[in-house]
Amino acid sequence: MYSFKNDYSEGAHPRILNALMESNLKQTEVYGEDYYTKKAIKLLKQRIKRNDIDIHLLSGGTQTNLTAISAFLRPYEAAIAANTGHIFVHETGAIEATGHKVISIKVNDGKLSPSRIEPVLNTHGDEHMVKPRLVYISDPTEMGSIYTKNEIQQLSKFCIKNGLLLYVDGARLGSALCSEENDIELSDLGRLVDSFYIGGTKNGALIGEALVICKDSLKENFRFYIKQKGALLAKGRLLGIQFLELFKDNLYFNLAKHSNEMANLLKNGISKLGYKFFTYSSSNQIFPIIPNKLIKKLQDKYSFCIWKKIDDNNSVIRLVTSWATKEDSVLAFIEDMKNFIS
Amino acid sequence: MYSFKNDYSEGAHPRILNALMESNLKQTEVYGEDYYTKKAIKLLKQRIKRNDIDIHLLSGGTQTNLTAISAFLRPYEAAIAANTGHIFVHETGAIEATGHKVISIKVNDGKLSPSRIEPVLNTHGDEHMVKPRLVYISDPTEMGSIYTKNEIQQLSKFCIKNGLLLYVDGARLGSALCSEENDIELSDLGRLVDSFYIGGTKNGALIGEALVICKDSLKENFRFYIKQKGALLAKGRLLGIQFLELFKDNLYFNLAKHSNEMANLLKNGISKLGYKFFTYSSSNQIFPIIPNKLIKKLQDKYSFCIWKKIDDNNSVIRLVTSWATKEDSVLAFIEDMKNFIS
Amino acid sequence: MYSFKNDYSEGAHPRILNALMESNLKQTEVYGEDYYTKKAIKLLKQRIKRNDIDIHLLSGGTQTNLTAISAFLRPYEAAIAANTGHIFVHETGAIEATGHKVISIKVNDGKLSPSRIEPVLNTHGDEHMVKPRLVYISDPTEMGSIYTKNEIQQLSKFCIKNGLLLYVDGARLGSALCSEENDIELSDLGRLVDSFYIGGTKNGALIGEALVICKDSLKENFRFYIKQKGALLAKGRLLGIQFLELFKDNLYFNLAKHSNEMANLLKNGISKLGYKFFTYSSSNQIFPIIPNKLIKKLQDKYSFCIWKKIDDNNSVIRLVTSWATKEDSVLAFIEDMKNFIS
Amino acid sequence: MYSFKNDYSEGAHPRILNALMESNLKQTEVYGEDYYTKKAIKLLKQRIKRNDIDIHLLSGGTQTNLTAISAFLRPYEAAIAANTGHIFVHETGAIEATGHKVISIKVNDGKLSPSRIEPVLNTHGDEHMVKPRLVYISDPTEMGSIYTKNEIQQLSKFCIKNGLLLYVDGARLGSALCSEENDIELSDLGRLVDSFYIGGTKNGALIGEALVICKDSLKENFRFYIKQKGALLAKGRLLGIQFLELFKDNLYFNLAKHSNEMANLLKNGISKLGYKFFTYSSSNQIFPIIPNKLIKKLQDKYSFCIWKKIDDNNSVIRLVTSWATKEDSVLAFIEDMKNFIS
Repeated sequence: MYSFKNDYSEGAHPRILNALMESNLKQTEVYGEDYYTKKAIKLLKQRIKRNDIDIHLLSGGTQTNLTAISAFLRPYEAAIAANTGHIFVHETGAIEATGHKVISIKVNDGKLSPSRIEPVLNTHGDEHMVKPRLVYISDPTEMGSIYTKNEIQQLSKFCIKNGLLLYVDGARLGSALCSEENDIELSDLGRLVDSFYIGGTKNGALIGEALVICKDSLKENFRFYIKQKGALLAKGRLLGIQFLELFKDNLYFNLAKHSNEMANLLKNGISKLGYKFFTYSSSNQIFPIIPNKLIKKLQDKYSFCIWKKIDDNNSVIRLVTSWATKEDSVLAFIEDMKNFIS
Repeated sequence: MYSFKNDYSEGAHPRILNALMESNLKQTEVYGEDYYTKKAIKLLKQRIKRNDIDIHLLSGGTQTNLTAISAFLRPYEAAIAANTGHIFVHETGAIEATGHKVISIKVNDGKLSPSRIEPVLNTHGDEHMVKPRLVYISDPTEMGSIYTKNEIQQLSKFCIKNGLLLYVDGARLGSALCSEENDIELSDLGRLVDSFYIGGTKNGALIGEALVICKDSLKENFRFYIKQKGALLAKGRLLGIQFLELFKDNLYFNLAKHSNEMANLLKNGISKLGYKFFTYSSSNQIFPIIPNKLIKKLQDKYSFCIWKKIDDNNSVIRLVTSWATKEDSVLAFIEDMKNFIS
Repeated sequence: MYSFKNDYSEGAHPRILNALMESNLKQTEVYGEDYYTKKAIKLLKQRIKRNDIDIHLLSGGTQTNLTAISAFLRPYEAAIAANTGHIFVHETGAIEATGHKVISIKVNDGKLSPSRIEPVLNTHGDEHMVKPRLVYISDPTEMGSIYTKNEIQQLSKFCIKNGLLLYVDGARLGSALCSEENDIELSDLGRLVDSFYIGGTKNGALIGEALVICKDSLKENFRFYIKQKGALLAKGRLLGIQFLELFKDNLYFNLAKHSNEMANLLKNGISKLGYKFFTYSSSNQIFPIIPNKLIKKLQDKYSFCIWKKIDDNNSVIRLVTSWATKEDSVLAFIEDMKNFIS
Repeated sequence: MYSFKNDYSEGAHPRILNALMESNLKQTEVYGEDYYTKKAIKLLKQRIKRNDIDIHLLSGGTQTNLTAISAFLRPYEAAIAANTGHIFVHETGAIEATGHKVISIKVNDGKLSPSRIEPVLNTHGDEHMVKPRLVYISDPTEMGSIYTKNEIQQLSKFCIKNGLLLYVDGARLGSALCSEENDIELSDLGRLVDSFYIGGTKNGALIGEALVICKDSLKENFRFYIKQKGALLAKGRLLGIQFLELFKDNLYFNLAKHSNEMANLLKNGISKLGYKFFTYSSSNQIFPIIPNKLIKKLQDKYSFCIWKKIDDNNSVIRLVTSWATKEDSVLAFIEDMKNFIS
């Protein structure tokens, strides 16, 4: 049984484990003030091409989202997200649990834009309603789509004009940045958004997300929030060493490229077999529409999510690839599809 | 510079890293439903000698405390803690941030007892005050003291009689259980308290605390709380593999024993030099009272916390040992003390 | 300038002020444990025909909703509401501020039904999402529509079957119960729903809502919640005296009837002039669609809300009547409409 | 049975009810934007001698405290209060329920001072602890004592120097300001503290507290907080009319003076009988220490709180007077004491 269920079924890239091994018995400072974390943050700042940003290493995506968003908002302020957004559906109300409404906007492709956000602003006018304050987007989105630089620029302008914060959930940011169709760099995000995070867990790390805070007014006393939310690791080096390894050369991007290549291989193979896709994806999640009968057969050898019913005979499935996905497994999957439908 | 500042300055015990290496590329289930986590939980249940308990693996102490305590309490209910308790002072108001008051009781030795708790119950009577509901103790306490079986039994009886939950913060539980003066076993806790956690971070793991829920009514839907608080690791195996390694034989206890032995060595050495201690400790944290002049000299070669001023010439320092503390370093420290005061 | 903007532009029904006067200098118990409150609650229980219910008097609708709903839900549980529901839009995220997501269902008429709720249950399956737990409906809805007994029965069955709580926001319950098309009595609500409140503020009181808790498991320690949310009035008699006056005979219902009659008069008059309505209402809020030009002229003499743009020339306005609305003012409004359009 | 239990056992001063009567059927704006509220606020600003302050009318003390304090603090910030402070003991954890720790300081007389606060600042240093940010005092305190102008000035200086906000709970502010020993005016508070409230409920109103926000940075969007906490009355006029009546002449102060005079009468009478007092009070709450036997006899004719056991034979009782306390009742109480002990 081979899994295309997600991009976190394996451990870490071996180089990361080696780095943990090598540094293991050295005494360091704790709570993220160690040598490795500091060096990793320095490297990240170089990549983002800004020194006047704050970077904090946290453990996971939901933790990062809830810590950051609850720190950035005043009690009466709300986040705006696509109805497919991770914070809106798949975090067990973590944002609401910190006291903030998430206003959703219905979309099919997972993306937000000024014209989609504007109606929300128009219908929130006084103190009887929450005050929309933070625009949450994911790149890539939960539907596999990615943002162009122009789209981020438009969002950025719109947010500045309307007093909104722009926040990017980068759980799979590597995959977006390494998509064939991407024209964004880390430094663009550093310039255009108020805060974003660079996902490690889904791109080779055991755990770890690097939260970047660009806007000055959001930086103050942020470590208090991390501690209060239970997100300050005693052995912060665990995060530092991993990000150091991922960014001391191009490991992070190479892993993401591999992941995307594997998704492309799957996409092309499935496409050639005549199947269509539920959404257009250029990242490491694809959503083919295939017959239920075929799904049944595939499930004997592969695990994956059944995303949505299309009609009585067909459903959308989600296939996710990762840095660890083997080309052989992808080829075998396509070969099996061929055989099952012939 | 050698550090006696805490028990988390190093990485993990090498066997743990090896276990991560060996399992690294195997695909597993995620979010704590993997083979390793299940096996680790099975082993823990055997040690606790109860099958009808729930065990969840979380990342750190503050995270575990806030997730558990906020799940166990209704909004108007409060926790009771010693004024030295970790949740009362050193978690940035994490419990209050979930909406609950922590009622403190002033103590010197870090310990609670029925007679110390009773006045709190007597002064909380109606709906104008919070309802005390959960007694939080740490074993060992933050002052290095440990509980006897009889003391836990008394607390347990008292709590049952008064409708209180009894919760044990076991961040350093290994050290307590392996103290020369300890007469408690894991199975005693499983019988006598409503919930407790077995700390991994401070006893050989990279991260990891095993939360044990004994009382049936506290178990329901607990995974929802874990997810909502951002504490559900995608790669839950990271926790499972570590606890599996710690408990598949006696590694957990052997590490704690070593830690205690190093603390004893320090204690005896310092004692022989004629110094007294601020509190009586039989675990891996000791609190000697030494001259400020001596502190200054020691600080050139060692790092440790200055805990409290005693008078103009003397202060309490805190020395912490761990599974990784080297006997040579302990002996060198004592030797240096001798030399510095002669 | 005469206002049809809402049903709380005037003070209280004169009988209520008289009752406050008469009792004014008598000393009573405080915090809602006074003679008047107890008697009012007794009368309400008789009307609801159940003695085994708990009733608490609170000050306003948002306060009642947030106190009750946050008390009824566990931290990971969510409320389900129509997207027109007061808690979803017009309470500044008060429910979310207590930590709970409000899941919205898009409707035009303000009403929920089993078939509308079912998809929400189907898409919330595991601990990565909140657990839908409480169905929030308003009777009348925010769009003026009311529920039939059969509809409430269907909802009640559905909720029981699916482990959901059914809660009715009765801010304007008088108007619903006195609607010509209503077939529900207070005792039906007492039998069919888990909790509801009887609105006083919008039906003759200065302030005051009577929260009724029918389900046993929701009753415990409720006064703690009231106090914690700042909703426990020192002079609870202020609420008790008002509800006593409203329910010691049929004042509450007579006031609501008058309010509905005034709305009907408006509705019929506007209808005769050839205008249509945005939603079908049989309560004290009506939503005619009229030309923008006419709106402009009316605004010189009357205040009311412009609800929604229909096209470039027409908009929906909202007209609200109350116990205090004068028949003369209604007739004058219609006469003015006639004149303005001729 | 005559009650000295509290200062809210009666309704409102008759002039207030008359004012409600007179204005009753006039239509006004709602949610505190009505003519009466605006005029009351204008009058209050004149009394405070500042135009650049914001004033909001809320319903009760706990509501005011929780709305203001949770608005003023960032999530990791804490309030500092005397251990006798109302927010620390008697608000069912309302502040903690909004996410904030209340740090208590042990005092006997209910008062805080720089030297009492300083140790709290010294022991709160980094992100592992909450950040003390707001000093909460009550004037008069819950023990009947009052602050001098010099004391407030010292606190004010200290708070400014240490980046702390100074907040005054004025539930019984009238009694403090009208105490024989008082040298503070409303305008002093407006100059020296960041926010305070002027209590109405305990000085002649049915409900109502006027929250004054002096510091600019605390003012923004405050109405959102009021609404979100369920504290925005639809018929805001109810609060406006009352404060207008209380402050359009010296009614507020005259009522407080009467209340203090009645307390003095009690104090002197009890003193002459040879009894001592638990704390020194110059406001409308006094705490005589009397024999348990006497208490028993008094309880047949009077109700009051038994505050604290002193020894096996004597206890502290609390006697509270108000604007409505009758001189005859006070004289009768003293006469009865005399008779009971002879």
